[in-house]
Amino acid sequence: IQSKLPGVSTTIFSVMSKLAAEYNAINLSQGFPDYPSDPKLTELVNKAMKDGFNQYAPMPGNVFLKEAIAEKVENCYNVKYNPDTEITVTAGGTQAIFTALASIINPGDEVIIFEPAYDCYAPTIKLFGGLVKTYQLAPPDYGIDWDMVKKLFTSSTRMIILNSPQNPTGSILSESDMKSLIKLISGTDILIISDEVYEHLIYDEQKHKSVMLYPELRERSFIVASFGKLLHATGWKLGYCLAPEQLTKEFRKVHQFNVFSVNSPMQQAIAEYIKNPDNYTGITNFFETKRNYFRGLLADTRFELLPCKGSYFQCASYAKISDEKDVDFSIRLIKEFGVATIPVSAFYQKANDHKIIRFCFAKEHATLALAADKLRNV
Amino acid sequence: IQSKLPGVSTTIFSVMSKLAAEYNAINLSQGFPDYPSDPKLTELVNKAMKDGFNQYAPMPGNVFLKEAIAEKVENCYNVKYNPDTEITVTAGGTQAIFTALASIINPGDEVIIFEPAYDCYAPTIKLFGGLVKTYQLAPPDYGIDWDMVKKLFTSSTRMIILNSPQNPTGSILSESDMKSLIKLISGTDILIISDEVYEHLIYDEQKHKSVMLYPELRERSFIVASFGKLLHATGWKLGYCLAPEQLTKEFRKVHQFNVFSVNSPMQQAIAEYIKNPDNYTGITNFFETKRNYFRGLLADTRFELLPCKGSYFQCASYAKISDEKDVDFSIRLIKEFGVATIPVSAFYQKANDHKIIRFCFAKEHATLALAADKLRNV
Ligand SMILES: CSCCC(=O)C(=O)O
Ligand SMILES: CSCCC(=O)C(=O)O
Repeated sequence: IQSKLPGVSTTIFSVMSKLAAEYNAINLSQGFPDYPSDPKLTELVNKAMKDGFNQYAPMPGNVFLKEAIAEKVENCYNVKYNPDTEITVTAGGTQAIFTALASIINPGDEVIIFEPAYDCYAPTIKLFGGLVKTYQLAPPDYGIDWDMVKKLFTSSTRMIILNSPQNPTGSILSESDMKSLIKLISGTDILIISDEVYEHLIYDEQKHKSVMLYPELRERSFIVASFGKLLHATGWKLGYCLAPEQLTKEFRKVHQFNVFSVNSPMQQAIAEYIKNPDNYTGITNFFETKRNYFRGLLADTRFELLPCKGSYFQCASYAKISDEKDVDFSIRLIKEFGVATIPVSAFYQKANDHKIIRFCFAKEHATLALAADKLRNV
Repeated sequence: IQSKLPGVSTTIFSVMSKLAAEYNAINLSQGFPDYPSDPKLTELVNKAMKDGFNQYAPMPGNVFLKEAIAEKVENCYNVKYNPDTEITVTAGGTQAIFTALASIINPGDEVIIFEPAYDCYAPTIKLFGGLVKTYQLAPPDYGIDWDMVKKLFTSSTRMIILNSPQNPTGSILSESDMKSLIKLISGTDILIISDEVYEHLIYDEQKHKSVMLYPELRERSFIVASFGKLLHATGWKLGYCLAPEQLTKEFRKVHQFNVFSVNSPMQQAIAEYIKNPDNYTGITNFFETKRNYFRGLLADTRFELLPCKGSYFQCASYAKISDEKDVDFSIRLIKEFGVATIPVSAFYQKANDHKIIRFCFAKEHATLALAADKLRNV
């Protein structure tokens, strides 16, 4: 059979986590915590199962969860989304991104992405016959020159995918980025997918500039959020998509035939859990402490740290250590030094090797310290 | 914005379950049980969460679950699937069907379906630019004349979607159907999606004719199965797809960018649970008893029963009761008589009204009896 995605192989996250397990390496590759989820939360799931929440949830999501999401969003951003018509619960952030693209992209439509980029964007665009237009972010700051973005616009430009805080670079979009973007797209009918799964992981007293804060952006945006990242439970595969009614309508048409609905007992549990903001407002400090701790540890190695303004990823250059390709270097790091990371070239469609690797610091301090012990030998 | 699925509205299952709730009707519409899931199983989920299975499962599925699936399949059908390369765990049967279509269908490809058909097939085909070629099954037996199916073949025919036991008609494919199908597709490169989510719900001592039993079919088939249906937990959204290595490879390319992976603690729990065949082999008798009980109850009403050889759905004609369109009749049945059903015209692309409605009998005997009390008034 002829492949629809000929260039695609298994995601780097699976490859590296598998190698890490094989070589018993400390896994700082795939983005997930190594500490337990809150027992209060898992107990709520247990209760929901006992209370009988084991059959299909409503297609757009559990009613209480959608209300709890609306409350949380209002708490955090002072913006109102209508639970009935503008919020859809998804099987994780990835499914939300996939479904948003599925509901909009027709063959020949162009979508602008910023590279390095989370690795699902480009193949999903192509799966629907879309064309990927790529803006190259440059290390170490990975900032955006919006005049150059404008040069990517054509009459076929249909969407832009934003991701702030950004995976893998930890860069963030500023107020001035948002203003430039607004100017750029005013008068066009370009839509936005804003991947904000790291919304709360933003440091140094910066405030997250969600697209929802800007009416000119909000009205054309699918905003993607993740309970996996928020609640330290990436394996539950729960997230949501915020979008104005017209966009939500199209989103749900696809959602209902893709997954139909999402895990019922866990939706019920999360609804109860996030009603109390204390259960998530500490997350920024929690991760900022980890970032600072990990950067401190790495300062003592031959790796050169890049900035990390957000996300739970820290990028570092190994240019002073080796000339190898980043994939080869990462694999050697696993096999010889016992630490798994992600080579940042994996976030480019055309392997773009800047000798940079990505560490995930969503780990126990002890894990990070152990990793640093090993990294000091490099 | 221009809709990619202009003809599509909210699935009938959502509409009817919502109406049922509003009017406090007995809900025999959407296919799900009204009795509790096995406490042994929910306790295993609780244990898995406590044991720390809260982060990303491997992309193709939990290793133990894939092995347990391979064992179950071998137990039930004496056919071997390789857990590593031929089994993928999905977020329910629907996601498996969607992903199989996504991984194969290009614009202009034709897919043959049999109507009445589960309502996700046609829109998903269209979403990928495919064309739906429809074979019309005729009540009351809904049998297939394979010579007529052959007439639908063109050089663009890419796939056939089978569904046995069939939703909504409860018909099943026989040995002779399978033989005819084999003859029909031999020498073509037509692929098959075999939706077998009701594999164990087959009555009167019939044996389920899975496509996997026929090497000529197996080698070109995505087989879709559902833990929701098997374990009375439709809200957990867990299922799987069996397919030969080449097809699985393409399937996973899409799967990884659609949902990436599937609920981790529940995969771990189900692996443990299904290792003991006693936990699922009773299901055939369990539902056969319900079918017989419900048919007995309906015999006492003015509805005319159609055959039900499999699935947990019973179709019935109301032609002797009313001339109304089936949608109108179903809505009146909710509002005036307090019983929710599904109008079978919802399973056709062009509303095809045979005055038939579908009842789900996956309910407590008491629920079915109560429904019958109400239906006797009709
Ligand atoms: C869905 S697996 C990848 C997890 C993640 O967000 C990352 O590591 O970048
Ligand atoms: C996914 S909702 C529909 C459930 C079902 O299988 C049915 O009622 O036909």
